[in-house]
Amino acid sequence: MRLSPARYLPVLDWGRRYDRGALSNDLIAAVIVTIMLIPQSLAYALLAGLPPEAGIYASIAPILLYAVFGTSRALAVGPVAVVSLLTASAVGQVAEQGTAGYAVAALTLAGLSGAFLLLLGVFRLGFLANFLSHPVIAGFITASGILIATSQLKHILGVEAHGHTLIEMVGSLLAHIGQINPITVIIGGAATAFLFWVRRGLKPLLRRMGAGPLLADVATKAGPVAAVVVTTLAVWAFGLAERGVDIVGEVPQALPPLTLPGFAPDLIRQLAIPAILISIIGFVESISVAQTLAAKKRQRIDPDQELIGLGAANLGAAFTGGYPVTGGFARSVVNFDAGAETPAAGAFTAIGLAFAAVALTPLVYYLPNATLAATIVVAVLSLVDLSILRRTWDYSRADFAAVAATILLTLALGVEIGVGSGVILSIALHLIKTSKPHVAEVGLVPGSHHFRNIDRHDVATDPAILSLRIDESLYFVNARFLEDLIQDRVTDGCAVRHVILMCSAVNEIDFSALESLEAVNERLRDMRIGLHLSEVKGPVMDRLKTTHFIDHLNGQVFLSQYDAWRALSTAPPSNAAE
Amino acid sequence: MRLSPARYLPVLDWGRRYDRGALSNDLIAAVIVTIMLIPQSLAYALLAGLPPEAGIYASIAPILLYAVFGTSRALAVGPVAVVSLLTASAVGQVAEQGTAGYAVAALTLAGLSGAFLLLLGVFRLGFLANFLSHPVIAGFITASGILIATSQLKHILGVEAHGHTLIEMVGSLLAHIGQINPITVIIGGAATAFLFWVRRGLKPLLRRMGAGPLLADVATKAGPVAAVVVTTLAVWAFGLAERGVDIVGEVPQALPPLTLPGFAPDLIRQLAIPAILISIIGFVESISVAQTLAAKKRQRIDPDQELIGLGAANLGAAFTGGYPVTGGFARSVVNFDAGAETPAAGAFTAIGLAFAAVALTPLVYYLPNATLAATIVVAVLSLVDLSILRRTWDYSRADFAAVAATILLTLALGVEIGVGSGVILSIALHLIKTSKPHVAEVGLVPGSHHFRNIDRHDVATDPAILSLRIDESLYFVNARFLEDLIQDRVTDGCAVRHVILMCSAVNEIDFSALESLEAVNERLRDMRIGLHLSEVKGPVMDRLKTTHFIDHLNGQVFLSQYDAWRALSTAPPSNAAE
Repeated sequence: MRLSPARYLPVLDWGRRYDRGALSNDLIAAVIVTIMLIPQSLAYALLAGLPPEAGIYASIAPILLYAVFGTSRALAVGPVAVVSLLTASAVGQVAEQGTAGYAVAALTLAGLSGAFLLLLGVFRLGFLANFLSHPVIAGFITASGILIATSQLKHILGVEAHGHTLIEMVGSLLAHIGQINPITVIIGGAATAFLFWVRRGLKPLLRRMGAGPLLADVATKAGPVAAVVVTTLAVWAFGLAERGVDIVGEVPQALPPLTLPGFAPDLIRQLAIPAILISIIGFVESISVAQTLAAKKRQRIDPDQELIGLGAANLGAAFTGGYPVTGGFARSVVNFDAGAETPAAGAFTAIGLAFAAVALTPLVYYLPNATLAATIVVAVLSLVDLSILRRTWDYSRADFAAVAATILLTLALGVEIGVGSGVILSIALHLIKTSKPHVAEVGLVPGSHHFRNIDRHDVATDPAILSLRIDESLYFVNARFLEDLIQDRVTDGCAVRHVILMCSAVNEIDFSALESLEAVNERLRDMRIGLHLSEVKGPVMDRLKTTHFIDHLNGQVFLSQYDAWRALSTAPPSNAAE
Repeated sequence: MRLSPARYLPVLDWGRRYDRGALSNDLIAAVIVTIMLIPQSLAYALLAGLPPEAGIYASIAPILLYAVFGTSRALAVGPVAVVSLLTASAVGQVAEQGTAGYAVAALTLAGLSGAFLLLLGVFRLGFLANFLSHPVIAGFITASGILIATSQLKHILGVEAHGHTLIEMVGSLLAHIGQINPITVIIGGAATAFLFWVRRGLKPLLRRMGAGPLLADVATKAGPVAAVVVTTLAVWAFGLAERGVDIVGEVPQALPPLTLPGFAPDLIRQLAIPAILISIIGFVESISVAQTLAAKKRQRIDPDQELIGLGAANLGAAFTGGYPVTGGFARSVVNFDAGAETPAAGAFTAIGLAFAAVALTPLVYYLPNATLAATIVVAVLSLVDLSILRRTWDYSRADFAAVAATILLTLALGVEIGVGSGVILSIALHLIKTSKPHVAEVGLVPGSHHFRNIDRHDVATDPAILSLRIDESLYFVNARFLEDLIQDRVTDGCAVRHVILMCSAVNEIDFSALESLEAVNERLRDMRIGLHLSEVKGPVMDRLKTTHFIDHLNGQVFLSQYDAWRALSTAPPSNAAE
């Protein structure tokens, strides 16, 4: 670990080598990302239940802070879909949407999340995020995509509806179906259809028409901007706001304000668990993107420093009118593809958004919420990937169970219970799997020094010797399994005089397993049967040597299984000598 | 699995071969155990907060039922210290001691525990008990011993006191210290001192005087009976009960009554978690004793059938005025040492106790509670073993942490939180350990086909090849670790052209790890570096073949690390040819 300032301030590293070429690349990337971010920020704020400016504010200070503290060259930090949904779910439980308390709760959530990420980073605890298995993450993202898309239907239909689970949402939509606003439906439906077409059909079309890949890509990403411009103009020109179409309305024309998160102990207690969840899910999303992009340029990401960068970004959001943020997939890829070389591109994007906040906000007054909802629906449906169910089913039933439980419980009971259950289930299934490890009885492959499973290979055995290869570390969850197994094997046939445990795949023996081995040793001694070990790994043997187990062992420790066999077998050596 | 009736009724197996020799041995053992059990049963009932007869009733039907369904030849089932403490703690939370509700709650606890054990047995889920690691059990037993001994001080001092944690108990004792009854203190103190002497000093003395080991042992075990007789006579002769010495008093002179546990949903909800805890702890205690004794005679215990035996015993306790029971260590060892050959010894013990319940209960009217408390204190202090702290400290800090946390939390916050925290901590520490597995960079040992850690051995390496041996199964908790590790190793030095993962100790690759390997594969391809695997185990390879990973692998799978080295190394082959 380097303890130089550059360890905690990566900006000192890349900033020193910054030159004109990098500057121009970063500027171009910033312009492209800024254009894409304006509608996206407004839309995600809508999803989080916050006023539209919160989305823009959440993209300014956080980006700047990440540029100073983060290690990824291309990561773009700001509001993202899943974190916005988690924010809506958490804040909705402590305050009424639209109230001042709601905004303060969102700031508090960002502050808690920032503090938690910073703590994890400073204490280098980033590995805790690994407790979220890939199946749980995949299941959660898919279920979240479905939840988010459903939650936006109310804006596209122009009705009031609430709820944090799929059943609540659908029920509420059906209950309000009579209030549908036809003009809103037309705007929302057209925007959705247009954006789907842009995503699926425009790029191939442009490529066929001879456009370069970058141009086709930029045009595709600009689709939401086009939808925003056209529908805003339509609402303004035809006075649709007076005919019941919900619009964004007044957005303060100002730089991000200085704000304070809440410090009430009660509020902090209520938001602590959601903040931890948001931090970990945000971190997992961010680090995956950052590592994928860094690998393409053979750069290095420091996960613990990433926690500090994201922590600083979230604290920044908490004090400048934002809400929880993380490194987003879509915007980071655009940033990377547009040629961003350093975090300075992010800083320029922040300047662009600050300009938008000051100068462009009056232009979105007539922007219909239905258009924003359409951009969200189209974006999140690309997250929905039910093929994970089939892929895990094919590979492993335990992983399938984790995915299926996470999806079902997230949809039925909400995001927090869904992810929590997924994590607990995947840990439980793993422990249960290791509680009954694969144990092979092995024999000597004729003409070699190798030992293989007697059920799979034609090998030499000796009725007086039971050789067991244990394919798992020995620890408390499977310690008794070994006791039972040996007890089972040596009481049935009485010819066994020696038991050899082949430990080539035993990476650890914990205290429980040590006591089980001692018990096995005692029992075998009572039966006048020897207990021997072979191929014990160095670190495992080092630890066993600190105990009296080896001294009391009713047998020997052999370097290799072949040595053990040679020393103990009384069978004719014909096979081994072949 | 045999599906014959003998599978579920082991009595059919041993009953068929029962003969006169076994009968006489079983009868002798039964007489010895009965004498020992009478004071013990009364004492444990006192500990559980129940009337004295409950302890005797809990030893009759349960023993008979275990004789029919259990697989151990020597296990003696009945009330034990730790389960009595757990009963007092659980039942004390739903009813006032001394009320009818308290007794019904104890019956209900036994009924729930019996039902839970039966379910575990029928579904063969006995392995779930393994989630209690040895350090957690040892810490729990030690802390329980301290709690139990402290809880009995009130009887020895003759004061009123309450509490379920050490602090509560000591505080309550200090608050009532003024009420001390001097005569009770003399009886309790003398009985305690006598029993300690019997345990420590009597046996060596008798042996020195020429007594046989069995006689010395029986005399030692009869110590509590002697203390009971002498103090009872003293209370009766000197009329001490009128001078404030608490006595057992009236005990119904009858066979066990038929009783019904409570079926109120509220009661069941409150007792469900304690019942599960009691079941698992009781099962762990019982199976350890049963296996140790069975091994001495090369007999076999079926853990799942043991669950059924213990479940039947607890259901028996629930319907005959008892409370939760399990196979006790002390009584089983006495039974075994006295020569019990079959579960019939248990049945004869039950008959002996039934006789005691009918004929002998008037004799214990003047028995002082202080004497019973003394027998408990002396018995449980032998459970306290603080050396476990030093032993685990020497062996592994993680195991030490689990022991220390279990002891401290059990003493400070009570038995349920103590055990629960111990289990969670030991699982978390195990997962954290496997989250940063040992990975060795290996090189070729000159003159052999073996590969060893380059940091420990003088081995041949090739700057273009990075060979990593991963000493752990790859699963979600450490999947990202591998990604980071490889990313870290191949960005620093650019000479690496091939990465070889040596998988001899990888017992599993789960879906998360598969996706991480796919990501590693992608990134290495972007860097034009090959990814190869060697020594992949059969079951792991079978599973990988169900995916496209092997097809897309940016390298090859080699049977052995040596094959990989030979195929990829461009270094002069001098070392390998030596």
